[in-house]
Amino acid sequence: MNQMTEMYIPTYTDVITAHDRIRPYIHRTPVLTSSYFNQLVGAELFFKCENFQKAGAFKVRGATNAVFGLPDHMLDKGVATHSSGNHALSLSYAAGRRGIPCTVVMPRTAPEAKKAAVRGYGGKIVECEPSTSSREAVFAEVVAESGAEFVHPYNDPRVIAGQGTCSREFMEQTGGVDMMVAPIGGGGMISGTCLTLSTVAPDVKIVAAEPEQADDAYRSFKAGHIIADDAPQTIADGLKVPLKELTWHFVSNYVSDILTASEQEIVDAMKLTWQRMKIVMEPSCAVPLATILKNKEMFAGKRVGVIITGGNVDLDKLPWMTS
Amino acid sequence: MNQMTEMYIPTYTDVITAHDRIRPYIHRTPVLTSSYFNQLVGAELFFKCENFQKAGAFKVRGATNAVFGLPDHMLDKGVATHSSGNHALSLSYAAGRRGIPCTVVMPRTAPEAKKAAVRGYGGKIVECEPSTSSREAVFAEVVAESGAEFVHPYNDPRVIAGQGTCSREFMEQTGGVDMMVAPIGGGGMISGTCLTLSTVAPDVKIVAAEPEQADDAYRSFKAGHIIADDAPQTIADGLKVPLKELTWHFVSNYVSDILTASEQEIVDAMKLTWQRMKIVMEPSCAVPLATILKNKEMFAGKRVGVIITGGNVDLDKLPWMTS
Repeated sequence: MNQMTEMYIPTYTDVITAHDRIRPYIHRTPVLTSSYFNQLVGAELFFKCENFQKAGAFKVRGATNAVFGLPDHMLDKGVATHSSGNHALSLSYAAGRRGIPCTVVMPRTAPEAKKAAVRGYGGKIVECEPSTSSREAVFAEVVAESGAEFVHPYNDPRVIAGQGTCSREFMEQTGGVDMMVAPIGGGGMISGTCLTLSTVAPDVKIVAAEPEQADDAYRSFKAGHIIADDAPQTIADGLKVPLKELTWHFVSNYVSDILTASEQEIVDAMKLTWQRMKIVMEPSCAVPLATILKNKEMFAGKRVGVIITGGNVDLDKLPWMTS
Repeated sequence: MNQMTEMYIPTYTDVITAHDRIRPYIHRTPVLTSSYFNQLVGAELFFKCENFQKAGAFKVRGATNAVFGLPDHMLDKGVATHSSGNHALSLSYAAGRRGIPCTVVMPRTAPEAKKAAVRGYGGKIVECEPSTSSREAVFAEVVAESGAEFVHPYNDPRVIAGQGTCSREFMEQTGGVDMMVAPIGGGGMISGTCLTLSTVAPDVKIVAAEPEQADDAYRSFKAGHIIADDAPQTIADGLKVPLKELTWHFVSNYVSDILTASEQEIVDAMKLTWQRMKIVMEPSCAVPLATILKNKEMFAGKRVGVIITGGNVDLDKLPWMTS
């Protein structure tokens, strides 16, 4: 992808186009409610369950939009990406559905369940060290060799337009909310959320939730420019990557606030959700609820959307097994 | 309850009455599908997710029907029951919603999560040994002391009529299936399923699924009369109890087949469901899928309903933690 394409800022029209394009390949995921959590928070919470999504995460929306939007002459070389996990398997899923090759660069420390799922969808894995710098270096080699089309996990207008379909569905399903909370890592989901809501429901306050131990988005937001960390450590392994120019555009323009949660708060919220809502979700997805539970006054009396972004977790390495 | 009431065989009219009565207090739980499992089995599976039900299990349907059907003059003494877990907390939930006392006799070995939930709903727990004989002896004392109305976990027409609302919803949601598989312990859910389907969809083949290590229903079915075990050992802790006369009526008249699964097959099916469907469910709920996976030829090409009966599991004691 050249520099001009990369800087194109997607519009809500792109979200509608994406939705029509990907609908046959994705689930319209359910919105669940929990009277337990409503009482606990003193708000009305609506959980958009992208853990039930194809390939186990919202990332399949953007990846499928990118893959099925490719012109015919680009199909034989396929697609490639680097990802801490869910984008990797989402792109593998989408490429598999379109019948084209897919290569993904993954940290060697990525959960086994995610690696197995990538292979299960027919994706080819090339491993790198668990740092942004190693990942980008290894990836450059892969693209140079294969000539594959790079589908960035989030800093890509096709991907962001695809992620925007999630809150489009959510608004249809719930009839609207006062606030929307989503986790922030590279910013793909939050950017898609901003893209859709700034058009269809501009009064909705958008809040991003981030691990304290990978709080580069929080610090960027306060500083007014992108601050990137190399290889932060957090159990929320989907949220380690830094913002990039396109996601920074949406975050800096449309996000009202970024809240953070500690590792223990994330694990507690995750376990509580499994116990009370009976859903399997990743640590990354527990970050919004963790921030809501520690900032109840901000949400009291409101209708609040919460995006449960994915459910790909290694059941043999649950955080409370060692805690 | 006197002998005459106990032997009353509920009809589909009782199911409709129950549904109208309990609707404000229960969830209309979603039906989920999984292309992974469809491919694995070669059938079209529809999972009725009662793990998302109020109090975490289908049992709230029957318990709520019993509690809200009580005449005013019986309210002050409240209700009582014995249960391996989910009926206990369902009855506590229902009693709490109606504002009446509830006492439950539970095995001291019941999962901590279930005991905590009973107390959370305001129920009072009296512990017994983990055997049918101890449970019944302790319970007799409780009823003699309190004068509370006994709501049996399954051998009660009010309870069976309530459980029948589950497959009523299911048929509305799916438009029908060829086969329906539910776990069998005491037989409450399977009896409610028989009651509803024998009226609204008599061609649906009803299959019960049971742990090999607690296969009293299987042996009863083959023998033509009730065989009861005292204190069978299985990880599917909701399925240890024996059939009684009312559930035997439905099982012997309407169930096509009873299939069994080993402990390892149950754990494998449970873990696979968590991994692929991203839902938290109890070992008992994995028994139907375990039997389907080992008898694929019986289900091939069919539309098959599977009742996921509950999601109350102790997250600190997952079966694959020790295996």
